[in-house]
Amino acid sequence: MKDVDYEAVAPTAMKGIKDGAFLVVQARDRINVMTIGWAMFGYVWGKPVMMVAVRKSRFTFGIIEEADSFTVSVPTGNMEKEVNICGTKSGRNLDKFRECNLSTTKARAIGSPILDIPGYHYECRIMYKGAMDPRFLAQDLKQLYPMKDYHTLYFGEIVSCYLRE
Amino acid sequence: MKDVDYEAVAPTAMKGIKDGAFLVVQARDRINVMTIGWAMFGYVWGKPVMMVAVRKSRFTFGIIEEADSFTVSVPTGNMEKEVNICGTKSGRNLDKFRECNLSTTKARAIGSPILDIPGYHYECRIMYKGAMDPRFLAQDLKQLYPMKDYHTLYFGEIVSCYLRE
Repeated sequence: MKDVDYEAVAPTAMKGIKDGAFLVVQARDRINVMTIGWAMFGYVWGKPVMMVAVRKSRFTFGIIEEADSFTVSVPTGNMEKEVNICGTKSGRNLDKFRECNLSTTKARAIGSPILDIPGYHYECRIMYKGAMDPRFLAQDLKQLYPMKDYHTLYFGEIVSCYLRE
Repeated sequence: MKDVDYEAVAPTAMKGIKDGAFLVVQARDRINVMTIGWAMFGYVWGKPVMMVAVRKSRFTFGIIEEADSFTVSVPTGNMEKEVNICGTKSGRNLDKFRECNLSTTKARAIGSPILDIPGYHYECRIMYKGAMDPRFLAQDLKQLYPMKDYHTLYFGEIVSCYLRE
């Protein structure tokens, strides 16, 4: 396990996220993993920040709304099958950890655990969240929301970032 | 002038932004430049995205609220004096372009111009914006807003990104 500079690995992480990364959130006894293909990295409120987006319709939404943290794991190995299952199945009907033979391990600094896989791991404390207001969305993006299940944007302070090989 | 991959230059750009970059916005005949120290990069709504934050109290706020685009220029040379002036003076009382001997040049793809300086230039079309709601801000960040002039977060599709030497 090796600490990494989140800025230095940003290009790798951005590419990895577009190919499919994992968002894990735990609140009390509820936990879920979902595939994400979108995220942002940067520096806001004087802190290194990662942003993830969760639709209100997702099982993860009910959990992250009660959580104070999330983790993102960007796999370095081939996890196409797991990315596919965690991006198409809902934790409402299926234990995706069991289905994918994935386990979690305690994070260093926050409550939500990280996925126990080789990859870049981001531990994030939720600093701010904003539910999308469709009035302020460009017209050509509205087609992404035929069911009007807009994303809520979660901004997490990156409190720890490391590579597990 | 050289096209660059916004992901590949993200670490350089993030560091540059923390050291001070320039946000330029134009709406009709009104234009302003301000220093920014915060920003995010990533991939959201299926597009490469840059996020900037503008407080409601800023002169730029009145302009960007009527604009459909913004540009960010991350200087590669030493522009400490200009960063300082554009970060502490308001365009309400001062023509900062004249004060800093800065000029603009037409962007390739959007209405707001870019600053005519050596550096990384991002042309962004505004896709979404969200005014911060302090109810969802972590307690320890509230001290950043003693005047309650919260930021509005502007998400721009990066339609062009290039280096001018």
